[in-house]
Amino acid sequence: MTLSIAHLGPPGTYAEQAAVIYANWLKQNTGIEATLCPYPSIAQSLQAVAQGNTQLTVVPVENSIEGSVTMTMDALWMLDSLRIQLALILPITHTLISCATSLDEIKTVYSHPQALAQCQGWLEQFLPNVQLIPSNSTTEALKLLKEDTTSAAIASMRAAELYNLPTLATGINDRPENCTRFWVISQGETDNSYHKSSASRTHTSLAFSLPANLPGALVKPLQIFAQLDINLSRIESRPTKRSLGEYLFFMDLEADADTPKMQSALAELNSYTEILKIFGSYNILPIEI
Amino acid sequence: MTLSIAHLGPPGTYAEQAAVIYANWLKQNTGIEATLCPYPSIAQSLQAVAQGNTQLTVVPVENSIEGSVTMTMDALWMLDSLRIQLALILPITHTLISCATSLDEIKTVYSHPQALAQCQGWLEQFLPNVQLIPSNSTTEALKLLKEDTTSAAIASMRAAELYNLPTLATGINDRPENCTRFWVISQGETDNSYHKSSASRTHTSLAFSLPANLPGALVKPLQIFAQLDINLSRIESRPTKRSLGEYLFFMDLEADADTPKMQSALAELNSYTEILKIFGSYNILPIEI
Repeated sequence: MTLSIAHLGPPGTYAEQAAVIYANWLKQNTGIEATLCPYPSIAQSLQAVAQGNTQLTVVPVENSIEGSVTMTMDALWMLDSLRIQLALILPITHTLISCATSLDEIKTVYSHPQALAQCQGWLEQFLPNVQLIPSNSTTEALKLLKEDTTSAAIASMRAAELYNLPTLATGINDRPENCTRFWVISQGETDNSYHKSSASRTHTSLAFSLPANLPGALVKPLQIFAQLDINLSRIESRPTKRSLGEYLFFMDLEADADTPKMQSALAELNSYTEILKIFGSYNILPIEI
Repeated sequence: MTLSIAHLGPPGTYAEQAAVIYANWLKQNTGIEATLCPYPSIAQSLQAVAQGNTQLTVVPVENSIEGSVTMTMDALWMLDSLRIQLALILPITHTLISCATSLDEIKTVYSHPQALAQCQGWLEQFLPNVQLIPSNSTTEALKLLKEDTTSAAIASMRAAELYNLPTLATGINDRPENCTRFWVISQGETDNSYHKSSASRTHTSLAFSLPANLPGALVKPLQIFAQLDINLSRIESRPTKRSLGEYLFFMDLEADADTPKMQSALAELNSYTEILKIFGSYNILPIEI
């Protein structure tokens, strides 16, 4: 059995790095081999699973500095069939990659907007006059660097090695504790028995819309979990896209949806919400990097 | 008296359009003239006010499709001295600007990532094979279009007129009800008497961090307002940037901070929060466009 895993490409992105870590874990724990399939956007890597072109995708959910990856949340709400199987947290160490011989020669720095934002203090200090150009992924601009020695890109050290490119500085993220959480996602209906374990899963993610924007409308859903002593580890709002001021709420709860306590909480939650979607229960992959 | 207003440039952005609307309103209602000052990023236009280089800035807060402008929220939390004076809501109608004679000739489309995202359905339908290139603002790439007739940019009709460029399609946003909310922001300490009115202001915005991530920690702050029948019109979480899973919460409440009810709610809120920052009370500018 071989599994196919979609991720944001080209190869060398942090999403690919997370997919490689997951694939290695899978091989060691189940013997199952995986092949990686790069896609030009996060939305397309989620659609690949929804349309059955790949069995899994590994997508970024949130970064400790720049926050939620809204594209992942919006696609998960839209694509009803997807289920979260596992989470993994990847430490992020950004590297400045360039064929220039010194920082003085650099006129342009390319990277994904999240990576540019995570290094803005370093860039202001060491490259205050360069032009910052956003790209669709951290690795998209790497192919330009050999031709243009006045350009640099921010990506991982692993990307520099993959593309055989020199680095000028590493650990350039403004905060050393920078990390990104990823989700491993499959279709709900398919056989994911290799993810199942007898142990209870630690997290459940869900999203809902509310029937009306009234004082206290959000208190009731939160009270349900507080009264049952279930910790809410994240709440995010996203626009319903119908009209300004109407929101969806995304929640991560520290409990398994199959436990009687959560079953009762979810039944009560259903009575206060307009649309409720449960994206699955899962564990966090213990990784050592 | 002349006021200076910072905004995301180059001229022709939606932020500039909002600043022009505000400047016209100011002139009609107070006789005060304003000059506009474009800055290369939203963060820099907020810093311009914090450092006293301009008296005001007009910045986007949230879009009905793409959600919060996280840069605005993060800068507001960091730059303690800023206060919100007014909100205004601008309908957004995106236009495809290009010197090409038909859609078939277009190979590349430039725009701000929010604008590209707001037109993704239209782009998939009518320009499925073009390369989408994110830029720092909707107007940044307009200067390239006269030289390269295979390129297009997504910006406002007003931008096309300002730069004297032809348009190929208008109203290309996927949802016609697309609109963006802006805030007019000044330093708290300066004289903003022209904003004051005897009438009560309709909204208050604030943000806080919580002392511990425990079950129910967020319920208490929400309960305070629910019990006083104060509507919460928006809640957003942002990372504290200290470690993954620690958040700041941004709230918009439908009440004036100076009323006794809100004063009592804010005093109680202060006892449950670690850091509480109140960004000001304000009205929404009634605009007819």
